[in-house]
Amino acid sequence: MQQIKTPFFDLIENDLNRVEDLMRASSGDIHLNLDEAIFQLLSSGGKRIRPTLTLLAGAMLETESQKCVTLAAAIEMLHTATLVHDDLIDGAGLRRGNPTLNSKWPVGATVLTGDYVFARAARLAADTGSNDLMKIFAETLMIMVNGEITQLFGSNHKDYRQAYFERINAKTASLFELTTYGIALLNESDETTLQAMRAFGFEIGIAFQIVDDILDFIGVEQMVGKPVASDLRHGLITLPAVLYNETNPADNSLLQIFNGQELDEDEFHALIDKIRESSAIDQAMLEAQEYIATAKQRLIHLPIGLHRDALYELADYIIRRPL
Amino acid sequence: MQQIKTPFFDLIENDLNRVEDLMRASSGDIHLNLDEAIFQLLSSGGKRIRPTLTLLAGAMLETESQKCVTLAAAIEMLHTATLVHDDLIDGAGLRRGNPTLNSKWPVGATVLTGDYVFARAARLAADTGSNDLMKIFAETLMIMVNGEITQLFGSNHKDYRQAYFERINAKTASLFELTTYGIALLNESDETTLQAMRAFGFEIGIAFQIVDDILDFIGVEQMVGKPVASDLRHGLITLPAVLYNETNPADNSLLQIFNGQELDEDEFHALIDKIRESSAIDQAMLEAQEYIATAKQRLIHLPIGLHRDALYELADYIIRRPL
Repeated sequence: MQQIKTPFFDLIENDLNRVEDLMRASSGDIHLNLDEAIFQLLSSGGKRIRPTLTLLAGAMLETESQKCVTLAAAIEMLHTATLVHDDLIDGAGLRRGNPTLNSKWPVGATVLTGDYVFARAARLAADTGSNDLMKIFAETLMIMVNGEITQLFGSNHKDYRQAYFERINAKTASLFELTTYGIALLNESDETTLQAMRAFGFEIGIAFQIVDDILDFIGVEQMVGKPVASDLRHGLITLPAVLYNETNPADNSLLQIFNGQELDEDEFHALIDKIRESSAIDQAMLEAQEYIATAKQRLIHLPIGLHRDALYELADYIIRRPL
Repeated sequence: MQQIKTPFFDLIENDLNRVEDLMRASSGDIHLNLDEAIFQLLSSGGKRIRPTLTLLAGAMLETESQKCVTLAAAIEMLHTATLVHDDLIDGAGLRRGNPTLNSKWPVGATVLTGDYVFARAARLAADTGSNDLMKIFAETLMIMVNGEITQLFGSNHKDYRQAYFERINAKTASLFELTTYGIALLNESDETTLQAMRAFGFEIGIAFQIVDDILDFIGVEQMVGKPVASDLRHGLITLPAVLYNETNPADNSLLQIFNGQELDEDEFHALIDKIRESSAIDQAMLEAQEYIATAKQRLIHLPIGLHRDALYELADYIIRRPL
């Protein structure tokens, strides 16, 4: 697993290990194949950015450590469950450079493994002891799934920018929001703190997804662990494409994709090169930076100290990571 | 919808309508296709036996009515979600005589609709305000999904009887257990009552599944809404087949199915006729009746009155319904 190795990481390394242990803790008598599948899902890693955010937020607000660890595990399990189903639906063969569960297992077993991880996530969320948290936890899953369904059937928005943000709010920002808002709920914070924490997580999440979508364009296949511009290849319009379209409204090849048509390989690669060389990538990065700047403002009245500094560092890390 | 029409039904008819309303209550801004899919899932009915059991148990223990309605809706939504994924996995074309979601929709949309209904169920469970209930709710889903995975990959038990009960305990009895145990948890009942309610629901659930499995053998296709002996056709060994095997251990055609081989149509129909004409069906029915008798004993120290009588009637109804 490639955990984040930066100064702020040291602050929560021990608790992050407790999160890993809690996620892997076997829950009694389950089928061997399921047990192995979950072990592999959790071992294939990821940066654990959501648990990191949860634990730093918890430490800043001095929330009881065991509750923070439990919430972090619940959120990462929820994230893992959605990945299992998303990869199945997208027919993705690789995730973080490793073969996906659906590439090795039949549809049924993959669906059920995702369901089981959902259930484990809900059990962990209940273990926090907060009913308010549990409600928001379930609602977040509803928002995320509705976002996936909207992506599948198409948005009602004709405006590509609006449809893009509608999608990433649901798919990504809502779960980031849950990390910091969840901590504030467990902490029974006052309304001002609740809303500040909520907005911070949400905006960090938007920036994270924008950067992910930039990486899909500028990354090297070996680094991102999947083919370059795989989103656009699948007809998914992300911010760089939206921005390229805003400044080049007459580019026919992009319009063809917008209209659901496929390009031949040469045309497709020419389009990717044009988008990469345009100002769209830099503009998208600027938008991500704006979200990060706004998010950092949200913490201005929250407890000064190592952990708030670390949250600022984490926010900066999100836009720095690919570059 | 074909709700149960018996005297005990009148006692909870109003609350059952509130359960229906709560399940259908739209949860804000969701994609039109998802909204329609959920509406159809809920309209295609079913006997609402789990909500009926929940509401009668709640009335017997004088649990706050709104909590009972919420729990009943949560459990029926959980049940609905598992049906959506199970039908997808089984490739089932019909459910209760209606086309299944997976027969009309792509895999992805079906998986996501199930996920959304899971999330709604968890949200409703959280609305009961009981953290203990929420934990058991999530654990029940874990048990059910693990049961489905065991069915898919095969049990570790070489003993067909043991494997059968292991499967129906997980798939069916655990959710029935949740109805009455959940009410006792919401009611903060003493340990004796908790365990009595828990056992009652569980045993009723086993009997319900045994009768369902009998119906699969003796039912008429038009009545049960799916082809006769569809379980055995799919290699699934249920109690009538287990019992037939116990008294006819040398029957080759059944052993072939036990070994995962397929029979030709004539052989298959001959086997079904032999099982139907054997004592296996009556023996299976006797086992179901024993579970019902034991379950009824569990309530002996619980409040005497209309609602306990109704639970006895409901228990009897479960073994009476097909005959």
